[in-house]
Amino acid sequence: MSREIPGVKASAGIVIGAALLLHNSELEVKTVSVEDADAEIRRFQEALEKAKADLHEISERVEREMGAEHADIFRAHLMVLEDPELVDTVTATIQQQRVNAESALNDAAQGFISIFEQMDNEYMRERAADIRDVTRRVLSYLLGVELDMPGQAKEEVIVVAKDLTPSDTAQLDRRYVKGFVTDIGGRTSHSAIMARSMGIPAVVGTREITTSVQPGSKLIVDGHAGIVIVDPSEEEIAAYQAKQAEYDRQKAEWAQLVDRKTVSQDGHHVELAANIGSPQDLAEVIAHGGEGVGLFRTEFLYMGREDFPTEEEQFQAYKQVLEKMEGKPVVIRTLDIGGDKHLPYLNLPEEMNPFLGFRAIRLCLDQQELFRTQLRALLRASVYGNLKIMFPMIATLEEFRQAKALLEEEKEALQRSGVDLSKPFEVGIMIEIPAAAMMADVFADEVDFFSIGTNDLIQYTLAADRMNERVSYLYQPYHPAVLRLIRQVIEAGHAKGKWVGMCGEMAGDPIAIPILLGMGLDEFSMSASSILPARQQIGGISREMAAKEIPQILGMSTSQQVEDFVTNRFAHMNS
Amino acid sequence: MSREIPGVKASAGIVIGAALLLHNSELEVKTVSVEDADAEIRRFQEALEKAKADLHEISERVEREMGAEHADIFRAHLMVLEDPELVDTVTATIQQQRVNAESALNDAAQGFISIFEQMDNEYMRERAADIRDVTRRVLSYLLGVELDMPGQAKEEVIVVAKDLTPSDTAQLDRRYVKGFVTDIGGRTSHSAIMARSMGIPAVVGTREITTSVQPGSKLIVDGHAGIVIVDPSEEEIAAYQAKQAEYDRQKAEWAQLVDRKTVSQDGHHVELAANIGSPQDLAEVIAHGGEGVGLFRTEFLYMGREDFPTEEEQFQAYKQVLEKMEGKPVVIRTLDIGGDKHLPYLNLPEEMNPFLGFRAIRLCLDQQELFRTQLRALLRASVYGNLKIMFPMIATLEEFRQAKALLEEEKEALQRSGVDLSKPFEVGIMIEIPAAAMMADVFADEVDFFSIGTNDLIQYTLAADRMNERVSYLYQPYHPAVLRLIRQVIEAGHAKGKWVGMCGEMAGDPIAIPILLGMGLDEFSMSASSILPARQQIGGISREMAAKEIPQILGMSTSQQVEDFVTNRFAHMNS
Repeated sequence: MSREIPGVKASAGIVIGAALLLHNSELEVKTVSVEDADAEIRRFQEALEKAKADLHEISERVEREMGAEHADIFRAHLMVLEDPELVDTVTATIQQQRVNAESALNDAAQGFISIFEQMDNEYMRERAADIRDVTRRVLSYLLGVELDMPGQAKEEVIVVAKDLTPSDTAQLDRRYVKGFVTDIGGRTSHSAIMARSMGIPAVVGTREITTSVQPGSKLIVDGHAGIVIVDPSEEEIAAYQAKQAEYDRQKAEWAQLVDRKTVSQDGHHVELAANIGSPQDLAEVIAHGGEGVGLFRTEFLYMGREDFPTEEEQFQAYKQVLEKMEGKPVVIRTLDIGGDKHLPYLNLPEEMNPFLGFRAIRLCLDQQELFRTQLRALLRASVYGNLKIMFPMIATLEEFRQAKALLEEEKEALQRSGVDLSKPFEVGIMIEIPAAAMMADVFADEVDFFSIGTNDLIQYTLAADRMNERVSYLYQPYHPAVLRLIRQVIEAGHAKGKWVGMCGEMAGDPIAIPILLGMGLDEFSMSASSILPARQQIGGISREMAAKEIPQILGMSTSQQVEDFVTNRFAHMNS
Repeated sequence: MSREIPGVKASAGIVIGAALLLHNSELEVKTVSVEDADAEIRRFQEALEKAKADLHEISERVEREMGAEHADIFRAHLMVLEDPELVDTVTATIQQQRVNAESALNDAAQGFISIFEQMDNEYMRERAADIRDVTRRVLSYLLGVELDMPGQAKEEVIVVAKDLTPSDTAQLDRRYVKGFVTDIGGRTSHSAIMARSMGIPAVVGTREITTSVQPGSKLIVDGHAGIVIVDPSEEEIAAYQAKQAEYDRQKAEWAQLVDRKTVSQDGHHVELAANIGSPQDLAEVIAHGGEGVGLFRTEFLYMGREDFPTEEEQFQAYKQVLEKMEGKPVVIRTLDIGGDKHLPYLNLPEEMNPFLGFRAIRLCLDQQELFRTQLRALLRASVYGNLKIMFPMIATLEEFRQAKALLEEEKEALQRSGVDLSKPFEVGIMIEIPAAAMMADVFADEVDFFSIGTNDLIQYTLAADRMNERVSYLYQPYHPAVLRLIRQVIEAGHAKGKWVGMCGEMAGDPIAIPILLGMGLDEFSMSASSILPARQQIGGISREMAAKEIPQILGMSTSQQVEDFVTNRFAHMNS
């Protein structure tokens, strides 16, 4: 009999196929005495070399197929295998205790893993996952066992896993993987973001999928409804095939809109832009008809390496994005690191509340050389396209003024040394802290634009960490308090003739879109795969009519009331 | 030559006196072989018994002199000494390794301390401090060394320490201690709060005081300016004696105001109430002429114990406070625990961002039995005075409605069982989350009052953890964004005829008071020692005139601008 398992909608679409279970077998390691320790050490080293060769090959393939930053994870894995501390511990154990390599490796790895796992620091916990991944790879050679490596998919499958690590997803052969289902994770977990960027359906956070399916089980994944049907009946398959066909038809309709501008039913143009994490993401932005880049997160340049990127490396990346976008607007956000996003070479102390901590512009104004390097790279790139520089996490006017002053200083210094900076560019801020939203009228005198970062703004406004499962119900994008702040920002910007965008998840949300359009938002920046549905939706809404509903919406008491109202009022729209 | 050391103003007043350095000697422990392990174990056990006897005596004395909750820390210390894990580890080490008791104890304690210290959890780190304190006490008996215990002050002194733990301050003989100076800490650190509640001058966060003074060094502590003068000249002493006399005169003036109402120059009455942590604090509230209790934190009932307090225990505490206040208003806040405030018997998972986590009303609505018990105790106490029940950390209207519904259910159940609940009481909320401030107009339809909790409201509005030194500069009470939110709340409350109070640090701040008065705040709740200065200050301000300045203040760009303006405009006022 078929069984329906609910989960979290992570990526839209419907797929029917066979399950490929990842990491379903635990490698069993027994401790055995060995007589010839030297031979055992050689055996360990051979396995190590094979694993390294694997990683070299994977990292090259991933770099070629998916871009350099996806390959970083494998370079990190290689570094683990080249870490003398791990290797020496294992050889010493074999030598002294005369045990087999599997057992020595397993013990050493467990030691490191438990140290890292106890740290209350996401970055360090990820290091534990890296060690586990790498150990597994070496153990598989020692044991002569073939792993359920995600790369193995050679036919169309739905990947089923407890969770998908960046390493897992980077290894997937995208030609064969048609959907994801996981036990854990939410809409913003790595696997969910990955699925949306790959444009395949996904349901995450089912809690039980890995224990509910067998390898090869037939599955229907409904990414619209957030459910998975295991062992569906013929009728169910037929029904979902019909839905799938309807969705395909819908997609074909969307495809018609790729080269169109985004215009409301009553003829108002808004800009639909994309959020990107690296220059590699641009292909998808262009394929989905993005009218610009509303948020280019520059963190990728700083991650998975051992030192800061040079000015030249940064310049090349920014130039590349600006050129590829051929004069369309590109908003580049300066470094937003710190807090929960660590860089191993930037030695920052642990914080009790990293989301309320030393990050983004706070860190950049303190570590000025780091910041000035990025500003110079941005300035030099500015002549290659339509650049807009954006500062993150601005809370006070003093911060914006300081950041702007550093930019001016670097600009003058570059000009004195003969660099061409003749092309004008805009300088704006993210509005993601309630204080900045409250003070938008004052900021509007000095900035060129606002981009509302709803992910953080909602967290701070409701004082709820959305990553914390116990309070994530308070992460309410439609909460009237949030909507009032957004309206305030849009009005303050427009009163001074400045454009206002949004680059949080909310900008691509079908419930939020009519409200934001009615409020007069100028630019919506979202994941590339949301652009065409949003364009179609906006084409069906009269901005003037939506605007008339705003006062009533802002007077509502709860998020639920807003959601119900918008769902009813704009029910004719596609979503 | 004299030397001036700047620090953080922690408690007002001037004192001149000799330094008593605490914890200036590290106990040196050597490892020595012993022949008779049993004799060594007996020696350890004797030292243990002496330390326990000490702790019993201290805890009884502290309970008698300062109240039960101050004695809790010593009961916690006793529990450490009675912990079989520690004691068994020490005796086993002596037995097996034939080492002296000092070394065995020191090693065992260091092991536990380093485990606790590595945890990213303030509660657990405090446990490390407990073990260190207790170990020191037992070691002092083993080594025959007399400790620099804070209790030793037998003449008037200024206590100088790296930091003062709750244990240190609880042991101080208040008759002899005339001031505090510490290396670390800020305005809201334990030592600062303690100094204000003891009414003695204090400067904290000097970074270097313990290395800059000798035992017995002459010091001037200027708690108004936040400076310490070491080895002052005769001229300096004379100048400060004059200042001290002026301050004494000032205090005598304040003393005249104890029984007066708080009235602005133009005849408007506002209520000056006190924040308290336990019924023991009431004596001070009454001595300083408090017109009510604006915030009774009920957490003390839950701390330093092994299980939840019973309904009866809570009822007695609430009744006591209501009766002692003789019909004056008493705002009791329901439990605000969770996040960074842990209870050992409430087993909550670690959180990445506890300030944005599962705490206060969020936890109470989840753990309903805990909450219902408190509500019943409050309801039963309501007939003994002028009770106002307040819910903390309200972010959404649904939360308030749920909490209110639980209160109604318990009320009806109690009435059915014949309990007298004939006396009406008010039910309000804290406004400490930006969403609640933004929605004050909606809340005002359903609550009886608002009390603005600025400590948290400022943190969330500026997205800065004030306990985090790297971003505490962003904790800006006068930031126009904060002031705008406060004004919004006051106006929304008044529009529906509801009173609006404030129970954060800001309510007692001389710079904030003219602004809050001008905005029409009805109730100011502060530490007891701030009440009389505030009453005098308000008597010198015309509310009507202050009100006229508000639009200009709210249009300012930065916190600094507001501070400068208020300082100039209201310069004639006492502060």
